[in-house]
Amino acid sequence: MKKVNFESLDPSIQELLKKAEKVRNHSYSPYSQFKVGASVLTEDNEIFAGCNVENATFTSICAERTAYVKAISEGKTKFKAVAVVGFQENFVVAPCGTCRQFMSEFGNVEIYMAKPNLDEIKVSTLDVLLPCQFHFH
Amino acid sequence: MKKVNFESLDPSIQELLKKAEKVRNHSYSPYSQFKVGASVLTEDNEIFAGCNVENATFTSICAERTAYVKAISEGKTKFKAVAVVGFQENFVVAPCGTCRQFMSEFGNVEIYMAKPNLDEIKVSTLDVLLPCQFHFH
Amino acid sequence: MKKVNFESLDPSIQELLKKAEKVRNHSYSPYSQFKVGASVLTEDNEIFAGCNVENATFTSICAERTAYVKAISEGKTKFKAVAVVGFQENFVVAPCGTCRQFMSEFGNVEIYMAKPNLDEIKVSTLDVLLPCQFHFH
Amino acid sequence: MKKVNFESLDPSIQELLKKAEKVRNHSYSPYSQFKVGASVLTEDNEIFAGCNVENATFTSICAERTAYVKAISEGKTKFKAVAVVGFQENFVVAPCGTCRQFMSEFGNVEIYMAKPNLDEIKVSTLDVLLPCQFHFH
Ligand SMILES: [Zn+2]
Ligand SMILES: [Zn+2]
Ligand SMILES: [Zn+2]
Ligand SMILES: [Zn+2]
Repeated sequence: MKKVNFESLDPSIQELLKKAEKVRNHSYSPYSQFKVGASVLTEDNEIFAGCNVENATFTSICAERTAYVKAISEGKTKFKAVAVVGFQENFVVAPCGTCRQFMSEFGNVEIYMAKPNLDEIKVSTLDVLLPCQFHFH
Repeated sequence: MKKVNFESLDPSIQELLKKAEKVRNHSYSPYSQFKVGASVLTEDNEIFAGCNVENATFTSICAERTAYVKAISEGKTKFKAVAVVGFQENFVVAPCGTCRQFMSEFGNVEIYMAKPNLDEIKVSTLDVLLPCQFHFH
Repeated sequence: MKKVNFESLDPSIQELLKKAEKVRNHSYSPYSQFKVGASVLTEDNEIFAGCNVENATFTSICAERTAYVKAISEGKTKFKAVAVVGFQENFVVAPCGTCRQFMSEFGNVEIYMAKPNLDEIKVSTLDVLLPCQFHFH
Repeated sequence: MKKVNFESLDPSIQELLKKAEKVRNHSYSPYSQFKVGASVLTEDNEIFAGCNVENATFTSICAERTAYVKAISEGKTKFKAVAVVGFQENFVVAPCGTCRQFMSEFGNVEIYMAKPNLDEIKVSTLDVLLPCQFHFH
């Protein structure tokens, strides 16, 4: 993970981060109070944004997976970058292991992880965040 | 569950079923080959459609949950009806227990379950399909 | 669901309930504070008991599924009855939809649901709690 | 990941691997045909072994999580090492992202990953396999 500056980023990545920040408002997280927004940039430069949706019995779906299934259900399966934005001031959210596994099904992507106001951003890749991936094929 | 006829249904429900049938094309189901489409009708009459998205390690997300998180991430949390359409000729798909639990977080809905070509449709409600629901609140 | 009295139950079911109550102590539930114990009675009259094990990212495993995978990993796949015991005084816990789905893979069972001190017990069956089950086969 | 030789391993790790290999026989995997066994060594040198238990709707539980919930439901929460043994000749199974996340709740462990007959073994650690872990605390 390395730190990057918002202004230095490609406009498409800036937009990706802003959409992740905005969709966070729709987070349904009455159990954890932990609001997260995420967005995914497709190979053909569309952005799909999703929030976490919790469940009383903890079969919740994280923001990253929401963004992915939104994109996939619109026919997209090739992705370039993901942004994740949390809600807590002192905290850069990284995708959980379940999301890393889920995303890995669709290939490597850059992953931008930001503090709530996008004033601290770290970047890595899925292959770095999930080494030695488990795949059937 | 009772059988209903497509022509007898309200136009909004016919549209709901057609969108579930159509989105099924985007199903990502290389492991089960079991394509499913689902759609949800919001209280203010918007429709969100989703497909199942599988994962090598079986942390797959069903079509119904995809439809729900799409809607929720667009700010919708009140729903009236759900449609589920499978792919196998002789088979009316009912939502799995995980999806029933997930949907129950957002209240009761009518559930329309159809064969692939919408030529056989059954209807029930979430409260009937998930009796004695587990909730914290 | 009908109410039953502890004393009126078969000794094997009394034992099943007591083991579910006892294993609840091992519940790992720092996120919900909601301790649950469950146990499953195999066809050859062994009992396997499990608790819920939570996870920061809500890929938790409920007590019922813990009990089942314990039994299955010891070579058992035929079950007669399940007991579930919660922790909150005013609350009879029913299995969540995910657990109902998971258990349904192994056939119908009686399900005993009890208040924390076993002073109120309800009984039902999996087929009643998960009507119109989804199965491939 | 580095390769290690069975004979060179500590007897407790040899035993751990043998138990993971043996419990694999109880795998319930009719959907993937992908049998996996796993075992976990507790701080006080007990071994708990589990297999994968699949579900028609892909809310399956992997062998690693089965081993963990078995141990936890017996009161163990401190672990030293995990072994994972698959079934396919040409394949060293690594834990999936969901299992890595689930295990991370209980701290770092050594992870031994072996081919079916234990004739090829790789070793790593959970912290290496799940960098930048997501935790609330
Ligand atoms: Zn996640
Ligand atoms: Zn489902
Ligand atoms: Zn459950
Ligand atoms: Zn796993």
